[in-house]
Amino acid sequence: MAKKQQQHNVRIIPLGGIGEVGKNMTVIEYGDEMIVIDCGLCFPREDMLGVDYVIPDITYLKKNKEKIKAVLITHGHEDHIGATPYLLPEIGAPVYGTDLTLALIETKLAEHKIDGVPLNVIKAGDSITAGVFHVEAIRVTHSIDAALAFAVHTPEGTIVHTGDFKVDYTPVDGRVIDLAKFAELGSKGVLALLSDSTNAENPGYTMSESTVGDTFESYFKKATGRIIVATFASNIHRLQQVVTASKRYGRKVCLTGRSMLKIAKVAKELGYLDLDEDMLVEPEELEKMKKNKIVILTTGSQGETMSGLVRMAAGEHKKLSMIPGDLVIISSTPIPGNERYVSDVINMLYRKGADVINEGVADVHVSGHACEEELKLMISLTKPQYFIPMHGEYRHLYRHAALAENQGLKRSHIFIPEIGRVIEVGRRFSRMAETVPSGSVIIDGLGVGDVGNVVLRDRKLLSQDGLFIVVVTISSETGELISGPEIISRGFVYMRESTDLLENARKIIMDVVGECSANKVTEWTTIKGRIKKALRGYLYESTKRNPMILPIIIDI
Amino acid sequence: MAKKQQQHNVRIIPLGGIGEVGKNMTVIEYGDEMIVIDCGLCFPREDMLGVDYVIPDITYLKKNKEKIKAVLITHGHEDHIGATPYLLPEIGAPVYGTDLTLALIETKLAEHKIDGVPLNVIKAGDSITAGVFHVEAIRVTHSIDAALAFAVHTPEGTIVHTGDFKVDYTPVDGRVIDLAKFAELGSKGVLALLSDSTNAENPGYTMSESTVGDTFESYFKKATGRIIVATFASNIHRLQQVVTASKRYGRKVCLTGRSMLKIAKVAKELGYLDLDEDMLVEPEELEKMKKNKIVILTTGSQGETMSGLVRMAAGEHKKLSMIPGDLVIISSTPIPGNERYVSDVINMLYRKGADVINEGVADVHVSGHACEEELKLMISLTKPQYFIPMHGEYRHLYRHAALAENQGLKRSHIFIPEIGRVIEVGRRFSRMAETVPSGSVIIDGLGVGDVGNVVLRDRKLLSQDGLFIVVVTISSETGELISGPEIISRGFVYMRESTDLLENARKIIMDVVGECSANKVTEWTTIKGRIKKALRGYLYESTKRNPMILPIIIDI
Repeated sequence: MAKKQQQHNVRIIPLGGIGEVGKNMTVIEYGDEMIVIDCGLCFPREDMLGVDYVIPDITYLKKNKEKIKAVLITHGHEDHIGATPYLLPEIGAPVYGTDLTLALIETKLAEHKIDGVPLNVIKAGDSITAGVFHVEAIRVTHSIDAALAFAVHTPEGTIVHTGDFKVDYTPVDGRVIDLAKFAELGSKGVLALLSDSTNAENPGYTMSESTVGDTFESYFKKATGRIIVATFASNIHRLQQVVTASKRYGRKVCLTGRSMLKIAKVAKELGYLDLDEDMLVEPEELEKMKKNKIVILTTGSQGETMSGLVRMAAGEHKKLSMIPGDLVIISSTPIPGNERYVSDVINMLYRKGADVINEGVADVHVSGHACEEELKLMISLTKPQYFIPMHGEYRHLYRHAALAENQGLKRSHIFIPEIGRVIEVGRRFSRMAETVPSGSVIIDGLGVGDVGNVVLRDRKLLSQDGLFIVVVTISSETGELISGPEIISRGFVYMRESTDLLENARKIIMDVVGECSANKVTEWTTIKGRIKKALRGYLYESTKRNPMILPIIIDI
Repeated sequence: MAKKQQQHNVRIIPLGGIGEVGKNMTVIEYGDEMIVIDCGLCFPREDMLGVDYVIPDITYLKKNKEKIKAVLITHGHEDHIGATPYLLPEIGAPVYGTDLTLALIETKLAEHKIDGVPLNVIKAGDSITAGVFHVEAIRVTHSIDAALAFAVHTPEGTIVHTGDFKVDYTPVDGRVIDLAKFAELGSKGVLALLSDSTNAENPGYTMSESTVGDTFESYFKKATGRIIVATFASNIHRLQQVVTASKRYGRKVCLTGRSMLKIAKVAKELGYLDLDEDMLVEPEELEKMKKNKIVILTTGSQGETMSGLVRMAAGEHKKLSMIPGDLVIISSTPIPGNERYVSDVINMLYRKGADVINEGVADVHVSGHACEEELKLMISLTKPQYFIPMHGEYRHLYRHAALAENQGLKRSHIFIPEIGRVIEVGRRFSRMAETVPSGSVIIDGLGVGDVGNVVLRDRKLLSQDGLFIVVVTISSETGELISGPEIISRGFVYMRESTDLLENARKIIMDVVGECSANKVTEWTTIKGRIKKALRGYLYESTKRNPMILPIIIDI
């Protein structure tokens, strides 16, 4: 800091979380220094067949590794921490987050057998200095405890990054979002606000988490059988409310589902979940208990195949099964794309004789994200010079931008970001600048980035009409057919009932090979191409399907 | 009818539309005679890879062909008429429906080059006699015109089949649901009511179609650019309301989308759509028109890939493109499973500079199905002895059954159906009886029923981790490797970057073949099995993926 500071604009570069819900990651640069906020993953779209996760492409960060002064994590949801095992070792910079957030990251790193990542616990109200940046951690309310927003002070001005937030005046733990801090920043001057757009299409206010507790109470009060509550394990306040209602109505709680057990353990240890040991029962103990003394708290509120609730509903849970008269509370909203799975589990539950309460029926869920009025409040408190909506699909970003414009921000001061596109802001100047290397990296099994467009395109093709393999053995001397053609097909037609089709295909192949041999065509690529072309035409005409055709030539 | 009538129970057999939304088909039997109501298709679930449609298995009807006296069609939606080209020729009985319904069926039959199916136009209020059955056609309101319910009078009592319905007191054409007829049937005595369960989870009343017109008015009044409305082509009242609002505000209408053009033509010809030729403009004419004189009425409200709206949003429409400032009204609700596609098109539209109004923003859509209060009204008017909820997933059927129970029906008089399961009802006796052959038949391209579980399982497998083909040529005398192993893989890993993996796999295969040869193992199945086993272990360990492994042995 001794040498004279050169004047720079602040460069804001989202590497994820734009035009999508997931893999949030934002870079803030000033001069030769940068910090990274969040390190999330994204679940694959249905058309990314066989893919496990998608994480941000951090080529840009790897190239600028020595410039990175800190990685700040807003909270412990997968879309903010899920890529940490893959990316933190590559980034190498010190990581800052709350105790809960870091505990969840640590669990992940341990599962990947990674150590040596420097994790630094901070709490709301703390400040840290990382290179030229002075960062304040600000308490926000969200659907996981210990969530933070960050005020990143740079020589050119302050950037406020909200993380995910809602304005909850009556959170379960009483720790209200620190609106005063946002107001204080606003009155001192905020250069740019980056704000959560997830619920920008929803008018009004998001209800307080406490309202869900009231609904739980009303059902717990009158229920005469077992109660099963499915929710996100990470929503510890939700878990707390189930525990509290259970206690009040003399029920004990049985936890099931891998992430439920894991997160409840961490949350208990850190004091985020008040759950006495004597409130807990093991699955094995339930049989001898009265039904009206039991609450089962489980994962599966999104209809996930391997979750506790789905295994119970399908009769595939090792230790727990549904009993007619069970009351099942599905305490969540289906994430877009999961509606079908949630509906499936509801159907299964009804067929097992359960009664099902979900968000259509009662207020058993509230969102963790701010709706329109809260978003306006954030803009109004921070009074930013520039506004950058983040975290959301484009529909959300555009709506959020429209809100900001309605509040008086100039259109030229609002930037709808793109992944990798640099947004340069300064006191006197701003622009959309160049695009840095960025995008998506696919995780499939152990592979990081080895599945790309070609592999996905092939999977898609194979999934539609299957596969038609042709093996011909030809003489390397004459080009004549020695054996075959052998045909192997999968996922195309039921072979035993398609003898005519196969016979005709065989004839077509023999004709092509014969012709090639007669015309001295010996180039394999050519022969393969001709087989493919002839077969594709015939198969499409006969079936209106286009299997992947794979000719294999063996020469002897 | 001369011979003495023997006393029978009525047998009600749903062949589709139970535990699902789609492929509706119900059989009503009395003695040796039967009628069939509806003949629908179902769109495949996402996990039915590559499948086009699913239709009911009508093995039971084919076996009893001579007993079928009539096929009654309630209305012209795909889930009620979509299977007609596949099944009507097999059933062979005379078909009854309204002019619009039959016109839509005729278009389908013509596309499949089928003629000779006897189609008989009826209208609400008509009765027909089919064998022992006396059938009355009753007007209902729904999201397509000319929809019917049926009262099927049998010697044992009257069965009321509502078809799809809502209670709309102010439909666009003024033709209100015939509640008086349902009341009359109720006072004379209804043996069983089969009623539409689609919206049984929704409290209150479904809003009238007219309310959508009011919303259209409010947007048309203030819009200054082009207006694009996407909706189901079959919702002719919706089209009418767009046309009416266009007329009032001096705009002309451009139709696009294959089914939009087709259905608008049929509806105009039959007098269901009042649309003067001079209100219509061709896509080519739009360029020279003022933007505030234009309405584009298109398909694509479900985000369907090939629809007008999606092609426009993606910039792939041959004649129409988006213009910044366009107002797009998406006048529908995403069908479960389509949320992702609808969201995609909304995102694309925003990026093209359009403003998007969908059901979250304004009342631009109402359902065609009755909500709780309307369902109760139907039960209350018809006062059935037995109640059978139909048309819906199990969650809907169970809720509908609960409504009926709350209205005083005995639980033993309520039957939640299963596909193929016979429900026997009589004045003095009722039971769930045997299950007849039934289920789903898959349509894929030209194939009807040739894609079954094995093919679908293979497609699924191929879609997840792709394919690993191994070709080995061995001597038929010694069992020794002559050439290969050759490895071809698709959708598994990016091959060029996996040379080590392939080299190791090759070695493993050579070891297996060598061992087999040394131990005189010549049985191909055994050799293939050993290759598969060895490779599966190695590939999974190296990649945590399980491609389909296909060993091919060529012997020379």
